[in-house]
Formats: sequence, C-alpha cells, structure tokens
Amino acid sequence: MAELCVRSVLVTGANRGIGLGLIQHFLRMPTPPQWVFAGCRAPQRAQELRNLASKHSNLVIVPLEVADPASIKAAAVSVGERLAGSGLNLLINNAGISKINSIDTETLEDMTQVYTTNTVGPLLLGQSFLPLLKKAAQESPGSGLSCSKAAIINMSSSAGSIKDVYVWELAHVISYRCSKAALNMLSKCQSLAYREHGILCVAFHPGWVQTDMGGSGSYKPPLTVDASVGGMLKVLSSLSEKETGTFLDWEGKVVPW
Amino acid sequence: MAELCVRSVLVTGANRGIGLGLIQHFLRMPTPPQWVFAGCRAPQRAQELRNLASKHSNLVIVPLEVADPASIKAAAVSVGERLAGSGLNLLINNAGISKINSIDTETLEDMTQVYTTNTVGPLLLGQSFLPLLKKAAQESPGSGLSCSKAAIINMSSSAGSIKDVYVWELAHVISYRCSKAALNMLSKCQSLAYREHGILCVAFHPGWVQTDMGGSGSYKPPLTVDASVGGMLKVLSSLSEKETGTFLDWEGKVVPW
Repeated sequence: MAELCVRSVLVTGANRGIGLGLIQHFLRMPTPPQWVFAGCRAPQRAQELRNLASKHSNLVIVPLEVADPASIKAAAVSVGERLAGSGLNLLINNAGISKINSIDTETLEDMTQVYTTNTVGPLLLGQSFLPLLKKAAQESPGSGLSCSKAAIINMSSSAGSIKDVYVWELAHVISYRCSKAALNMLSKCQSLAYREHGILCVAFHPGWVQTDMGGSGSYKPPLTVDASVGGMLKVLSSLSEKETGTFLDWEGKVVPW
Repeated sequence: MAELCVRSVLVTGANRGIGLGLIQHFLRMPTPPQWVFAGCRAPQRAQELRNLASKHSNLVIVPLEVADPASIKAAAVSVGERLAGSGLNLLINNAGISKINSIDTETLEDMTQVYTTNTVGPLLLGQSFLPLLKKAAQESPGSGLSCSKAAIINMSSSAGSIKDVYVWELAHVISYRCSKAALNMLSKCQSLAYREHGILCVAFHPGWVQTDMGGSGSYKPPLTVDASVGGMLKVLSSLSEKETGTFLDWEGKVVPW
C-alpha cells in the first residue's frame, strides 16, 4: 500500500488525543508534508504542539475555535497566506467534544454546544477551506479522487451509527450520538457536492481510543492513539472515488449508518 | 388491520400541514380519542384548529413552542391537568422547520435553529411527557408494545436517510438533512431507553406531501396530506415491539438509515 503523500494538511483539535497523534505521524513520515497546520483553540496552552513546532519548521500552529465562524474564516486566511498560492490537500475535521449525560439529564444547552462543535464546525470548515481544497485538486495530476489530491476527513464515531448505537450500555450521550449521526449525513452531502471539484469526503470511526474523551468512562479503551492513527493513515492512503461518501473505521471496514 | 384506538394523543405543530391532517383524522375516527391535544406556537392564529375545537369538545389547543424548554414543560403540566390522573398514549413529534440553503450558503444560525426545533424539541418533549407516557403504559392491559398503549412517533423524513439522501438534486438543505438524521438517532436511543417503561418509539417518513414545507420547491409533491396521514395511522395501528426503534414510511416500508 502506497504511503500517504500530501503537500499540506490541516488537523483541527490538534493539541491532544487523536489530533496530536495525527500531527506526530505526519511529522514522522519518510516524506513529510511541506506544511502541517495544527488547529487548536488555545495555542499558548498547547505545550506539546509548541515543543514539536520548535523542532519542525513545517509545523504551523493555527488558532482555531471550530464553534466560531469568524475564527474559521481567519484560520482559512492565515493558512492561505502560508500556502502562498498553492492548495490544501487534506482537511481533517478532528476537533470534537462530548458531554456525559443520560437521556434524562440531556439539555438544550448541551445538545446545541456539542452539535455546534461536532457538526456545524466541519460544515463551516468545508465552506471556508473549499477554495484551497479546489486549488489542490486542480494542481494534482491525474483524474479520480484521493487523499493525496484533495480530501475532507470527518472524525465521526461508531457511537454515531444509528444501526449499532455502539456502547449504549456504557453511556447514553445523546448529544454526542446525534451530532455524529448528523456529521455522517454532512459527510455524505459534502461527498455529493464536492465530487465535481475533485474532493474526496469520508467519515471515520477512529476506534475506541485511549484519550481524555475515550477514557472518561469506567472502562479502559482497547486502542492506543498510535494504533488508531497508524491504521487511519494507512486507510487514507488507499482511498479512491469508490470510497467517497462512506463511513469507515481505522481498519478500513465499512461502518453502517 | 385493527383501528388505532387511543384514549389520548398530543400532536405538535398541529396548526397546518400533516399535523392538522392528523388532528382531523383522529377527530373523524369511529371511536375518537377522549382527548386530542393540538400543540401549536400561536393558538390565536390557528384558525382551522379553533374552528375544529368549537365543534369537538375532545380537542384541546395547547400553546407549544418546541424550541423553548419552558414552553414544553408548561405544556406537559397543562396536558397532565386535563388528563386528571390518567396517562398520555401517543406523543407525535410532528413540528418541524426547514431553511432553503445550498451547502455553500448554510449558516451556523440556520443549522442551530433547525436542529433545535427538529431534534432537540422531540428529545425534550420525550423527557417532559415521560411521566404521562409511563402512566399510560401502566394503565394499559397486556404486555408488549403498541401505539394504543404508549408511543413516541417522531416525524422524520427520507431526506434524513444518509444512505438515500432523498431528492438531493432538488435541494441541499443540509440543516434539515442533518437534523433529521440526528432525529433518527434520537428515535433509536428513545426506543432503547424507554422500552423498559412500555413505550414504543419510531421515526416516520410521511412521504413527500403537498404542504407548505413540501410544496416550497418547483415540483408538486405526489402525496396529499390525507393519503399520507391515512397511511401513517394504518401503520401506527399495526406496530408492535418488533418495530420499536425502526424508521418506517407512510406505507409501513422500512427506510434505510
């Protein structure tokens, strides 16, 4: 399987967990991207990213609050300036939040907050970065779709699979499940709307990973960040137009809607 | 097929379209419900409901803004007072809105507003009316689940089917599609959480119906309100524990998630 080869990538929610793992893997590649943009809400507090940036001149930390349309637009301008006329190959919408509620304690406020970050954010990021993604697709030789050309990767979850309702017995988290089912719908819609621009779009289940979010329950998640991210990058490298609009896990298996 | 037989029902968004059609069908039944609660935002402007209420003493118009938690709580209190100790058999979450946007023009405000009404509303209505639904289930003889006992019916749409992305070429309406995919997830979660209380929960695709919402595009929808509502009530009368947590259309066919 070919190594994923991109000139530029933006990862949102990059200060910890799977986002940070993705950044580390990109930087460690034999042929690393020319630009690795790490979006995070509070760059001044993102110590691990700052340490990495002091060693890797291709890593750029971008202030980005995905629940704030103005912040998204500002990030697109700043990334565009760095790219100086070339496009962005890969947008990884990884930033996400969860609120631990049962179906009885779920509130309008939590439903709205989680939806804004997990679903609306990826929509608005797609809109704001569309010109840069289109440019990357135009610059890339060959027809067809691929992550090396131009792609939007939405970090979803099997918890958002309506058929599976993964780990229901451990946590209701209706706000999270609804936001991820909606994100899956968004991914499908983006795939239909952006196909003509040469942009591949998929939703991903990263597995149940040992992160602050994954590990907040009483069970230890089975997957390390490294195993999840390694698996996902392998899958990303193999994607073509056949997979656009699908929902895949870190091993490349199709997850039911 | 047995006629649907309920002592009490609440329909939200009952002032027009499918909601009004449901109210009319309930009132016309050979054995009409003892209480038909018609929730609507502005009772003073709901002229057709007011005309019906002047002729049918079992029809009660309930002020209800499903995007407002306080309004939902007040409606539950008012319905509970009318029921005077007995339960509510059927909650039909029919109220819904749509905003005509393409994927390029969709906004945070429209995404949030549509989600609040179409997804969060049905969650909060389920919470607030749970005691009355549980009471109806306890009052009803026999085991198993049915709409005559206690049920939540969420009015979804095939436009919210991630697999189908119904009529994409006519309208992107991302905010609507995402809200309905999320509503389907909510319906599944409600079915899992409320099964132990004897409450059946399903999501419904009413068909593409000649209403203000359905008819706002350039095509005339194929279905009359009467045909859609008649079909749905027939399907409702046939539901059992086998169907809880499913997504069905007005003819009883399973719609893919």
